[in-house]
Amino acid sequence: MSQISLERAHALARDVLRAAGCTPDSAEITAAALVAAEADGIASHGLSRLPAYADQVRSGKVDGSAVPALDWTATATLRVDAGTGFAFPAISAGLAAAAGRVAETGLVAVAVHASHHAGVLGHHVERLAEQGFAVLAFSNSPAAMAPWGGSLGVFGTNPVAFATPRRDKPPLVIDASLSKVARGKVMVAAQRGQPIPDDWALDVDGKPTTDAKAALAGTMLPIGDAKGAALVLMVEILAAALTGGQFGFEASSFFTADGPAPRIGHLFLVMDPQRLGGAAFADRLEVLLGAILAQPGTRLPGDRRLGLRARAAQEGISVPDALLDDLNSRCG
Amino acid sequence: MSQISLERAHALARDVLRAAGCTPDSAEITAAALVAAEADGIASHGLSRLPAYADQVRSGKVDGSAVPALDWTATATLRVDAGTGFAFPAISAGLAAAAGRVAETGLVAVAVHASHHAGVLGHHVERLAEQGFAVLAFSNSPAAMAPWGGSLGVFGTNPVAFATPRRDKPPLVIDASLSKVARGKVMVAAQRGQPIPDDWALDVDGKPTTDAKAALAGTMLPIGDAKGAALVLMVEILAAALTGGQFGFEASSFFTADGPAPRIGHLFLVMDPQRLGGAAFADRLEVLLGAILAQPGTRLPGDRRLGLRARAAQEGISVPDALLDDLNSRCG
Repeated sequence: MSQISLERAHALARDVLRAAGCTPDSAEITAAALVAAEADGIASHGLSRLPAYADQVRSGKVDGSAVPALDWTATATLRVDAGTGFAFPAISAGLAAAAGRVAETGLVAVAVHASHHAGVLGHHVERLAEQGFAVLAFSNSPAAMAPWGGSLGVFGTNPVAFATPRRDKPPLVIDASLSKVARGKVMVAAQRGQPIPDDWALDVDGKPTTDAKAALAGTMLPIGDAKGAALVLMVEILAAALTGGQFGFEASSFFTADGPAPRIGHLFLVMDPQRLGGAAFADRLEVLLGAILAQPGTRLPGDRRLGLRARAAQEGISVPDALLDDLNSRCG
Repeated sequence: MSQISLERAHALARDVLRAAGCTPDSAEITAAALVAAEADGIASHGLSRLPAYADQVRSGKVDGSAVPALDWTATATLRVDAGTGFAFPAISAGLAAAAGRVAETGLVAVAVHASHHAGVLGHHVERLAEQGFAVLAFSNSPAAMAPWGGSLGVFGTNPVAFATPRRDKPPLVIDASLSKVARGKVMVAAQRGQPIPDDWALDVDGKPTTDAKAALAGTMLPIGDAKGAALVLMVEILAAALTGGQFGFEASSFFTADGPAPRIGHLFLVMDPQRLGGAAFADRLEVLLGAILAQPGTRLPGDRRLGLRARAAQEGISVPDALLDDLNSRCG
């Protein structure tokens, strides 16, 4: 492992994306998103994605020159066509436009389609919360979960994210995918030849399995069994049917360079907390969070992440040497 | 048990509420909501609530004369003060006003505060979906769940509901509370002296328990462990902090006539699906639902409910005789 500064990581990511054919804007925004994931300790959404991202730009699966197209279909609804580019420029453009409209409407929906991996969904909503907005977000992703009672993947692991501003504090950020565990945990078990608990995943026949390899060939189980499966369907409708995105079972992989673009969707609901909760909103939120923290053994979602982020700003991040060599070789 | 028609049940519920002191409007709307729950086989949210509801009107905990006050705080944000009346008239007035605004804005948020039990949250969103809107809804409720790692109730079981119109079909409705099981199941086990699985609830010390009575004195566990607990917090913020409602730990019981009003909150996000998903929305939704139903062993959320509803319209509903006697004696 090598330790590199966030600035160095950003420059490296940007250069890899530029060399692959991204426009300067797309490369900057995408690099910033990947490095922000690294800084928060979410390596699965960080620089490890870059080789696949660059390959997808080269193959044309991701359009590195895409310019997001914004279309206000009503005063509070904004459609964003990501044009099969990376998700980050489309989301960034859509949320910036929404932020400028909320003073009039109190609330704006941003529906993004023809998109790609949203990365850390919580980061998008966090950025808006830093500007004073409460934001709810949904994304779908390539098929990894079956409908309840079924055995074939239809839905992605479909994250939900929410952020709200706090007085004199960083925003509170909630970010949860609806699979019981991340698929990455099953991958690690498969690599190590270890069994997994029988409530994580189903095999291709729709039967619970403790065999990690059989689980990878099958589907992940949702949190909350049938209840959670209904919520997964809800997120698929919000993120894809209600944006014009492709469904999980239609979407190509975020990892391989072949095939058509995944064209998935994301939905963001950007709210002015004072228009909804009134002038007391900031005080009231602290009353709720105080009632949680008054109990021993509790903490707020995201606390650990903020600690890691502060450390990464000071000390930089650890990157596997093989990855670093690969990335350096790609800078052209 | 006695079998009575839905019309008879409605008239009975209305008369009980009128005799307790409700205005004609409040009595009609509330009666309709309770009977709709009965018709769908959700007896826990039906006529069994009426004695407690009537007692709360008599004691003044519920204001039977409350007139919901609507306040557009921006073009797409509507605050509704339920005035400590029943939730149903406030939600009904708010959603009707929202439906009239969506043509302009594409999306409206209805934030209800100073409210009471929303009943079957799915019914409110279903009604709007019948008019062509996709609706997402959140409610909080009196404390029944602890923050993750804690032992004292802070949040309600906090339902999430969603409905979307379908072409040539009744709306698809999703309605799920975020506790692993309904508290009513623990009550039944306690009455029968039966143990419960150890992952349903915690005792007052925050320890998992198989003792149903200890569970009733403690808190319910969320679906999805820490992930689900974060979603419960999200719903509490959406439904209460972002509406001006009281939090679960501040709210009085929906069942007893003493004390102040619960003053909880609900948030509804009413969307025009075509403004967000485009003209293809209806087709695309059927593609998704078709991919689910193509798999053996699957069904769509709410299918069972629709069957029960059709039967109740034909055959009426079964009401325990003791409850029927109680209600008849209350008609003044």
